[in-house]
Amino acid sequence: MKKKTKKVNAAILIIGNEILSGRTQDKNVSFISKWLNSNCGISVSEVRIIPDVEKEIINNIKLLSKKFNYVFTTGGIGPTHDDITAQSLAKAFKLKYGFHKEAYKILESYYGKKKFNDGRKKMAKMPISSKLIYNPSSAAPGFMTKNVFSLPGVPSILNSMIENCKRYLVKGLKVHSKTINLFTVESNISKELGNIQKKYNKFVEIGSYPFFRLGKIGVSVVTRSTYKLKLGQVNKELLNLVKSKKIKILKI
Amino acid sequence: MKKKTKKVNAAILIIGNEILSGRTQDKNVSFISKWLNSNCGISVSEVRIIPDVEKEIINNIKLLSKKFNYVFTTGGIGPTHDDITAQSLAKAFKLKYGFHKEAYKILESYYGKKKFNDGRKKMAKMPISSKLIYNPSSAAPGFMTKNVFSLPGVPSILNSMIENCKRYLVKGLKVHSKTINLFTVESNISKELGNIQKKYNKFVEIGSYPFFRLGKIGVSVVTRSTYKLKLGQVNKELLNLVKSKKIKILKI
Repeated sequence: MKKKTKKVNAAILIIGNEILSGRTQDKNVSFISKWLNSNCGISVSEVRIIPDVEKEIINNIKLLSKKFNYVFTTGGIGPTHDDITAQSLAKAFKLKYGFHKEAYKILESYYGKKKFNDGRKKMAKMPISSKLIYNPSSAAPGFMTKNVFSLPGVPSILNSMIENCKRYLVKGLKVHSKTINLFTVESNISKELGNIQKKYNKFVEIGSYPFFRLGKIGVSVVTRSTYKLKLGQVNKELLNLVKSKKIKILKI
Repeated sequence: MKKKTKKVNAAILIIGNEILSGRTQDKNVSFISKWLNSNCGISVSEVRIIPDVEKEIINNIKLLSKKFNYVFTTGGIGPTHDDITAQSLAKAFKLKYGFHKEAYKILESYYGKKKFNDGRKKMAKMPISSKLIYNPSSAAPGFMTKNVFSLPGVPSILNSMIENCKRYLVKGLKVHSKTINLFTVESNISKELGNIQKKYNKFVEIGSYPFFRLGKIGVSVVTRSTYKLKLGQVNKELLNLVKSKKIKILKI
């Protein structure tokens, strides 16, 4: 079986002490991952959450940008002292760091010359060769440096910008997914699930996740594949299994 | 200034395709991190989210268990084929993998001999030298292997078990934290915040996070330190700054 196009993967690097300390609940991983998969056929293969520490940012950017097709960083591109993503990127890739002409213009015209203070000017500083990711919410642009996309940490702003990454991304094969929710326990189907997984190992990934709903215990069986046909075959086998075990399906 | 006790850190390793794909929103990072800090004075210094792939689990366990005092893994300890945390741990540390006698007994008595099928028996398999973390919700225990704590992925079950990790943990210095919510923009205070941070660099960590509330823009300034006195000093300086700039404080 020959694939139509190639698989494209990405890593997400969440930069921020507030996520690590548990003060802020991250929402960006789930959003970026779903967006990448459904819009670009790109799978997120690894996520890291690290503190606002230059050495950590540099090391992780170097490593992840080599290991994956793309890296998405979130956080650390605002005006304050703890926003050090841009300068760390420049150091990681040994690129010139300074005012990005276009970003400077955008911010100056947004704030007006009088209110364009040093903090705001800082948001125009980045590797000067970066490409901009426009920000319809609050002007300060994100930027693409080599294969790394740097976005802000605030979810509503990030969400408004993500479409502007699309033009820079090479698309991969879309991953299709299907979920069946069963009123049973995992151990009742674990053996058979394992056998089906073995049979389709190269093509389909089967995940099994317990749930609690309306006081009842259940299992969500999630199948994912770039091969739509194989996904259909696996789900047919799953439905046969469900029938033979007389398991009820939860319809949502 | 001499510290009373030492800093203790930890990493969290989230194992699960469902988190990476964005299908499931992770809630464990924030819970574990807050619990560790407030109950044990342990700071989470890094988080990784990786797929259910043996090689990835082994490599990350080896690396993180060396780099940090403790590692907390979540996910992959259930009865199905995609639950491979226990066997990967055994391989990472070159430990004997098999039925853990005590875990076997707990599960057998919970399910009853008749209903103790192969899937359920699998949950008693782990490095046989591991110490158990008891599970008041659903019996299947977590386990501590060297400095790695393996917990389930389902948040409600994990939450019910976390207290049972305490007996194994060496406590560190508690990190105190204070938040001031200001009705201003970051760039209005970024310079002064930077100066205060510089002055207290060794003792206090100052973070600045934009928020949107009731249609207004604001900044949460979060200060964190193991030194209560220094934290008080920084917050006094912050309040002076707020006063001099005539910034309103949001009282929650």
